[in-house]
Amino acid sequence: MKRYLPLFASAAICAALPVSAQDAKSYPAPSEIVAAAKADDWVAIAPSDILVMELAPDSKGKQRRVIIQLMPAPFSQGWVSNIRKLAAAHWWDGTSINRVQDNYVVQWGDATEKKALPQGLSVVDAKNYVTPDWPTKDWILARADGRPDAYAGAHGFYLGWPLAQGREGLWPVHCYGMVGVGRNLSPDTGTGAELYTVIGHAPRHLDRNIALVGRVIEGIEHMSSLPRGTGALGFYEREEERVPILSVRLGIEAKDVPAFEYLSTDSDSFAAYADARANRRDAFFNIPAGGADICNIPVPIRRKAN
Amino acid sequence: MKRYLPLFASAAICAALPVSAQDAKSYPAPSEIVAAAKADDWVAIAPSDILVMELAPDSKGKQRRVIIQLMPAPFSQGWVSNIRKLAAAHWWDGTSINRVQDNYVVQWGDATEKKALPQGLSVVDAKNYVTPDWPTKDWILARADGRPDAYAGAHGFYLGWPLAQGREGLWPVHCYGMVGVGRNLSPDTGTGAELYTVIGHAPRHLDRNIALVGRVIEGIEHMSSLPRGTGALGFYEREEERVPILSVRLGIEAKDVPAFEYLSTDSDSFAAYADARANRRDAFFNIPAGGADICNIPVPIRRKAN
Repeated sequence: MKRYLPLFASAAICAALPVSAQDAKSYPAPSEIVAAAKADDWVAIAPSDILVMELAPDSKGKQRRVIIQLMPAPFSQGWVSNIRKLAAAHWWDGTSINRVQDNYVVQWGDATEKKALPQGLSVVDAKNYVTPDWPTKDWILARADGRPDAYAGAHGFYLGWPLAQGREGLWPVHCYGMVGVGRNLSPDTGTGAELYTVIGHAPRHLDRNIALVGRVIEGIEHMSSLPRGTGALGFYEREEERVPILSVRLGIEAKDVPAFEYLSTDSDSFAAYADARANRRDAFFNIPAGGADICNIPVPIRRKAN
Repeated sequence: MKRYLPLFASAAICAALPVSAQDAKSYPAPSEIVAAAKADDWVAIAPSDILVMELAPDSKGKQRRVIIQLMPAPFSQGWVSNIRKLAAAHWWDGTSINRVQDNYVVQWGDATEKKALPQGLSVVDAKNYVTPDWPTKDWILARADGRPDAYAGAHGFYLGWPLAQGREGLWPVHCYGMVGVGRNLSPDTGTGAELYTVIGHAPRHLDRNIALVGRVIEGIEHMSSLPRGTGALGFYEREEERVPILSVRLGIEAKDVPAFEYLSTDSDSFAAYADARANRRDAFFNIPAGGADICNIPVPIRRKAN
């Protein structure tokens, strides 16, 4: 009775109509579309775009490693540059996860708020939350249903990232696992030393209000399954509840870091995958949704085969 | 630096334009709107509509109680009726949480799949996933922005629940914390003995494909923070990983159950709250979103003051 609650469902590019179980067999599942993608549909993630965060082992002594991919240009590069400097300075070593708020965020950084920052960090203007539009005819709206976004004029994927678009330009969106920069009240925009990741329903009201700088690509379960904080906003109330961060390193410095790759969001494979996510037609489903919100179409990322 | 990542933000019913920090002070936060709601804006939740699930204590001996509100008529009542019978028969006592899939669901029931069900459960037809439209001019579209839903013709709140609407009728939607009925392949629709709750981004592709029967109104952190299962679909691979369920009781049978109430979704207070969720204008925000998806407007529920 329980095995069939769907994770992977099959689909194809056609009208969003109910299909019989017989028909459904001929539709590949999203996971099958991804698995069948050609080798050159995959794009390598450079080690210089990766952060490796080692948390203290769990209560059973198990290693907890979280891998983050930093956002590429032209998005949020002022903060991303700061983060590279912080990692190179080993600034996060000895800091901690201090906040776990259910259905919202996990946040980490210096709980004392007194640790000196490395020299040379930039102060980034809030206007950089949004990137002015540039010739982007090749960034595709992956959803075939044409339904608009509750939070933006349009949305889609570009360079492997989920983005929204409005009159003022493009901006990355707060989906599950995205990493952003904590800040004080505006005009402060944060340095990048205080970071959070989304562990619940996409809090897209934060879009254009906080810098997004990356996403967790492996090990988010080490953060999302932490005990929730009982203080205001989910902060841990006692020091011993905090989860120590042993180290944070750039991929070019960390040891034993696997190579990762993402499915090109310009590829036909991705378009077919996105359609399959929006219109599931395997035998489990009676009614394909006929649409999907952008945060329900996670970009496929995997360890690269050797 | 870290205290200000927003949970509660202030707002009001007006145009979605950036406001200065000065202006923002005059906008009440969503939480303030809820706190200021009149006593008769709140609707009591009947104990007969509540399920109390007691999990085994955690590793530190702390009690773990999860409280679920069952859906009212006319939604999913065939399954809800079965669930009342299962609770009255104490059927879940000695069963367990068997599946925890990150950014998706926690699922519980009989891991052996052999436990006999009580007599008198109904077999419910899949057509009951959707309720045919009936005179519902008084169910309001709470979002003022007029943007449509990626998954439905329209959406809104009625009787305290988030619903979507299409040509075929109304249906409840898979938001964070909603509780649904596991099933096998169609035409099976599940009995209600195997249940799950959403612990990630709203999987709304499940709408109209699985029965939703309720929502977790207290204690979801006892499920969302569980270790993720390492088997396919997040199932626990070893028996000792499962989380024992000590008991599940209806509120009319359970002991020491507090009274709960929800903010009437027909009230002006709720409309103001929903607008504030969609257009945050407190000092933290530079740009109110100008919209929200329905799962980002959770219906306020609280323990009733004595």
